[in-house]
Amino acid sequence: MANARFQRIAVLGCGLVGASWAALFLGHGYTVAAWDPDQATLDSLRSRLSRSLRQLRRLGVVGRGRLAVARDFGAAVDNADLIQENAPERIDLKRGLYRDIEAAVGPLTLIAASTSSFVWSDLAKGMRHGERLLTAHPFNPPHLVPLVELYGPDAGLVRRAAAFYRGMGKTVVVLKKEATGHIANRLASALWREAVHIVAEGIADVKDIDDALVDGPGLRWAIMGAHMTYHLGGGAGGIAAYLEHLGPGQERRWQDLGTPRLTPALRRRIVEGVLGEAGGRTIAQLERQRDRALIELLLARRRRRI
Amino acid sequence: MANARFQRIAVLGCGLVGASWAALFLGHGYTVAAWDPDQATLDSLRSRLSRSLRQLRRLGVVGRGRLAVARDFGAAVDNADLIQENAPERIDLKRGLYRDIEAAVGPLTLIAASTSSFVWSDLAKGMRHGERLLTAHPFNPPHLVPLVELYGPDAGLVRRAAAFYRGMGKTVVVLKKEATGHIANRLASALWREAVHIVAEGIADVKDIDDALVDGPGLRWAIMGAHMTYHLGGGAGGIAAYLEHLGPGQERRWQDLGTPRLTPALRRRIVEGVLGEAGGRTIAQLERQRDRALIELLLARRRRRI
Repeated sequence: MANARFQRIAVLGCGLVGASWAALFLGHGYTVAAWDPDQATLDSLRSRLSRSLRQLRRLGVVGRGRLAVARDFGAAVDNADLIQENAPERIDLKRGLYRDIEAAVGPLTLIAASTSSFVWSDLAKGMRHGERLLTAHPFNPPHLVPLVELYGPDAGLVRRAAAFYRGMGKTVVVLKKEATGHIANRLASALWREAVHIVAEGIADVKDIDDALVDGPGLRWAIMGAHMTYHLGGGAGGIAAYLEHLGPGQERRWQDLGTPRLTPALRRRIVEGVLGEAGGRTIAQLERQRDRALIELLLARRRRRI
Repeated sequence: MANARFQRIAVLGCGLVGASWAALFLGHGYTVAAWDPDQATLDSLRSRLSRSLRQLRRLGVVGRGRLAVARDFGAAVDNADLIQENAPERIDLKRGLYRDIEAAVGPLTLIAASTSSFVWSDLAKGMRHGERLLTAHPFNPPHLVPLVELYGPDAGLVRRAAAFYRGMGKTVVVLKKEATGHIANRLASALWREAVHIVAEGIADVKDIDDALVDGPGLRWAIMGAHMTYHLGGGAGGIAAYLEHLGPGQERRWQDLGTPRLTPALRRRIVEGVLGEAGGRTIAQLERQRDRALIELLLARRRRRI
């Protein structure tokens, strides 16, 4: 059901992230205007959307919003209530885009930046109405993975945006303070740093590390967060007992974690390891397998939500 | 189906980990002798096992091995082919236990230590036949989470143990080199360090960080490892393109990750956050919810294994 506040959504940048957002908005009945500076990307949009919309229908998301593929930028943003911006991660390009948007729309149009690597204060620099900008970082693919990480300086606008995304079943986490990598990419980056260290130290290879994650902590983290997991690791005393008895051990282990350098030799080992793990499957095949598995997990979690 | 090589398993230490191992062995038809120095722990074992065995039946693990609750240590290890050791994480206690085992059994009995915090060379010190010891670290609860991390100096024994655990459907990862925390707890520790840093910096609270993990990277890591995820993050060029274009950005982000100290004030915030997240649910209730959700996810992954 479309949110009363935002009816017309403009999607700027229709690569992987933008197209996935567009599918989610359409599946929830919103009117979407999509624009991309690359004509071929726009030409293929409808066919790329059809698979994502089929996937959403499996999850019970069956709305049929109206899609307009906009011939020019002005037509896309005209009358938009919310602009989901998915330009490449180049600060000059994004700032230029915001300048163009502000020249084209009234001051009430909200801009949600899907950025993973920039923070709000980087992006808002030079804007006339910076408060209308939010960072709204999804996780790939945005139409399937629930998380959206929000940050903006205007609490009222953040609340409105949060209600909009939650209305589509998204899990919205609002940052109290902006941070590079927001929350989830910081966690992922911290984990991967240690994964790379384990490869560099010759403790285990790429595939074994991935297997250990998927069939160990990854499986559990699809159900229960890291803090809550340690709550259950503390026995009857919970997290307080854990911190009391095992906190010092964790602090010692933190000292022992690695800070690898991605040297050419180490990169080669990672590339070889990943290609071996992929076992000849193309990126497109892996994406399809991932998406099908994600849908099964999402359906399973609905039956047993913790 | 029981492995031809190991028929009689002794489970030493019947707390959470030991009882869960015992259930798995019994479900796969093995003969299990269980012992614990605490009589109350032994007395409650059969009733604690019945829930785990019911859970295993939901997963199609329907064997009915014979359980002997051993009155004394000698009776438990006598004639055991493999001893799964689950004593508390105290090095003196474990070394004493291995001394007692070696005095009681022949040189061919394998000892698998469920240890999370010690490495093989710590544990084997002082043993007569150290090569018969392996570290075999499961993830809680061992009867549901597939991962077992193995390390031992004798490649042939490691292969035999790996075949034994794999015969029960476990995912076995063999370390090439021993490492404190093996693989998965190093990854978990690295992630949690950053989670604690995010709390300490006031970027987000405990529950929001847990939510971001569970509905973001955690969900994906239940399907696909960290390296493979970046392979898909590299576009058509895969992991090589990712490392080329985004590797330097990751190295910069690594510099920005935190190294928090678990001060009393920070511990209090974590405890309050976790208790708020638990929302009055007891540890036992949370464990039951976790186990039910794990079973649903395991069944879902069988339908769409990547």
